[in-house]
Order: sequence, then structure tokens, then C-alpha cells
Amino acid sequence: MKNKFGFILIRPQLGQNIGSCARVIKNFGFSKLSIVNPRDGWPNYKARMTSVGAFDMLKKVKVYNNTLESIKKYDLVFSTTARKRDINKKHISIANFTKLIETKKKLNIGIIFGPEASGLSNEDLSYSNSIIQIPTSKKFSSMNLSHSMTVICYEIFKTINKNKFKKDIKPLQIISKKNISKFLSHLINLLDNKNFFKHKEKRESMLLNINNLFYRCELSNKELRILASIVSNLSKKNFKA
Amino acid sequence: MKNKFGFILIRPQLGQNIGSCARVIKNFGFSKLSIVNPRDGWPNYKARMTSVGAFDMLKKVKVYNNTLESIKKYDLVFSTTARKRDINKKHISIANFTKLIETKKKLNIGIIFGPEASGLSNEDLSYSNSIIQIPTSKKFSSMNLSHSMTVICYEIFKTINKNKFKKDIKPLQIISKKNISKFLSHLINLLDNKNFFKHKEKRESMLLNINNLFYRCELSNKELRILASIVSNLSKKNFKA
Repeated sequence: MKNKFGFILIRPQLGQNIGSCARVIKNFGFSKLSIVNPRDGWPNYKARMTSVGAFDMLKKVKVYNNTLESIKKYDLVFSTTARKRDINKKHISIANFTKLIETKKKLNIGIIFGPEASGLSNEDLSYSNSIIQIPTSKKFSSMNLSHSMTVICYEIFKTINKNKFKKDIKPLQIISKKNISKFLSHLINLLDNKNFFKHKEKRESMLLNINNLFYRCELSNKELRILASIVSNLSKKNFKA
Repeated sequence: MKNKFGFILIRPQLGQNIGSCARVIKNFGFSKLSIVNPRDGWPNYKARMTSVGAFDMLKKVKVYNNTLESIKKYDLVFSTTARKRDINKKHISIANFTKLIETKKKLNIGIIFGPEASGLSNEDLSYSNSIIQIPTSKKFSSMNLSHSMTVICYEIFKTINKNKFKKDIKPLQIISKKNISKFLSHLINLLDNKNFFKHKEKRESMLLNINNLFYRCELSNKELRILASIVSNLSKKNFKA
């Protein structure tokens, strides 16, 4: 699937944040990062420091002189904010944003992020189709730039790879009930030898409890062997007896 | 709803990341941050620098000498990783993790995060109920610590505030179709005066196009007034005529 997403930092102040954003973009399989008027010029040494394994992203960065130039190649542009902005622009939830991505397949989509201290200007916002509102605590909604980038890239990544991840979760290596059953027969046999079930009337309910416990556990082969060995060892005569 | 989530950084190396994590935790309305053996000791000046408005979180941090001590008060513990780990521990998707949160309401839930360079040890992982796998690009899965924290806190926040956010999106202030209709009558009247529809046979389809255009736009009151004023001005005789 062709990569159709680009991320644009408008007047970012800290090189550290630019580098961190590059890392996020690469973490989620994207590659297009643009910057409009970075405060401390470009290239930026501190950006390189925090990009860690994503220095290749920084080398490809496109730098623009104004917001309008930076968004011209996109069909749809979204701006991001944690605050509600007092501008008559449609605010959409992240859920609606990802639904929209799923229905519009052949478009170039640009996402713009504002400067650390002030956020996007009303002019920046005016170039966007709508504003994605990142849900946060109302008491403290000011997010770090690279953290906002994380939420947006993560949500897009999840959406465009939806089907892939369902299969991708590593299954637990658990053993069949047959092996647990063998182990339990062995255990109960040993317990019988030790006269564990001395109150015959309680044997039934005690067995039920034991079954419940061991069949519920999702044991691996190795773990079952360990348990079997513990049980065998405990049932041996004492060394000094 | 009582806050039942705690976040534990295991042997974090960089103070900057600890501060960033504190900020994330506060962004999403949580308050419990613990640290096990921070490499550079505690308190840490660099953590204070990056916590920005979340210094109150850092002041409340609990510091432990080992992972086991740090997790004892929790009923369920999850570890986090972007890599698949070669340990027989259940890996769960974030979707399954959030489903689980929704069904288990009265538990203390702890989430542990590993050190920047090496990630969680097998011993750390052994204390957790399961491993939450953060979906990332396979080519570059190494995420910054505070970015992993962002994904996890954001997902929990979205889940426990699910119903709140549906109502919380700011609606666009759009005007009724009646006002658009008034404007269009005015526009068409002016166009008729200018003999815009000189090819009578095309009038019908031209009107349809004009309707389509203006009824589709989600115009505000102010925007409609601006349009009406543009139209009126354009229709005036030239100043020098």
C-alpha cells in the first residue's frame, strides 16, 4: 500500500522535538516530514541527537518558508490540537478521522502540527479541512509535540494495518488438555498414596477444585514438566528418613 | 471514576524521559508514577526540565529498589514491548488490553516499562500477567520511552472516557439551508440582471451546479455574509463607469 501521509511541523522551536518526531514517523512506517520555518535553522544538531535510529528521515526533510507552500501537494490537510480552538473550522474526533482515512483511499493527506509554545495560528488552521482533536485531560491538555505526533501516527498506522495486526499477536504456547489430564492423574495417584483424601466425602469436591485450578492455567510444555517434577520430588521419601 | 492505574519505569536511564513520561501521565489524567532504580539517581534535574507543567507528578514519584517491590500493590500487571519477546508469556493486542480494562472495573492495574536501551528483563516480564504489544513498523520498532507511555496512557484514557468524548467534539457552527436559499435567490437574481444565463437551454443545469456547490459547503453565518457582500459588490457598476 502506497504511503500517502505527510507530516508537517509548523515553526517548531526545539531541535530535540524535531528529532523525536522523525523517530515516531519511522516507528510507524511513514517517511515524509516537512518543516516550516524552524526557529533554530536547519539542519539542527539537537534534532540529530534525538532522532536515534531515524536520522535518514531527517536527511530527507523538506523545509518551507510558509505554511501554504508546505501543504500545496496535499489533497486533504488536517491540523491537530488538544484545545478546542475558537475558529469556525470543523473539529473531528480521532475515530472520525480514522474512518475518513478508511473511505478515502487515493488521496495525499497532510497533517500539520503547531509550535510548542503557541500552537497553530488561525492562518495555519485556515488551510486545513478540519481540526483533529486529541482527547486529553481537561486539566492539563498541553502535550509535547512528539507525543501528539505519536498519537496521530499510531492511529493512522493502526487503521491502515488493521487486518495485519489481528494475526500478528504472538500466541501463547500452551499444551493440550490431554497432557494436563495425564499430569493430574499422576498427581492424584500420588496424593492417594499419601492418603491426602482421608475424608472420603470431600474427595469429589476436592478433585473438582484441583481440576479447576490446573485446567484454567495456560501452562507451557516446560512449565508442566517443572510441575510434574516438583510433584514427584515432593512425594519422595525424605532423604534422611 | 476512581483512578486505578499506576505506571512504573524500570531502571530508566535518561532523566529527560522520566520527565516526559510524567507529562504524558498528567496529560491523560493519571497521577501514579513509580521508578525502579533510576540510573542517575533521584531526584533528577533533567526530569524536572522536561516535565514542563507536570512537576507535581515528579514530586509524588515513588522509588523502589526492585521490580517485585514496585508491583506488589497491583492486582494485574502488564508489561509493554514493541518487539515480540521470546518468553512464554501471553502477548495481547492493545485492543484486547482495553477490552479487558472495560470488563475488570475494581482492580489496581500496573503497567511496567523497560529501560531505554535493553527493554525489560525476563525477570521483569515474569511478574506481569501479560505483555501488551504496541503495534509499530517491523523495520523500526524501537520507540522512545515516553512515546510508548503516550500510546498506553492515550489508549487507557480513551477507553475509560469513551462516552464522554462522543459528546465532546465541538460542532461546526453552520447556518440553515434557508439562509443559503435566500443568498442563492439574491445571487441568481443578480446574475439574471447581468444576462449570465444567456443560453436559456443551459440555465437549468447551471442552476443545479450552483446549488450543488453552495448547499454542500458548510458555511457559517459570517461566511455567508461575506459571500453576499462579495456578490453584491461584484454586481455593482464599475466605479469609473
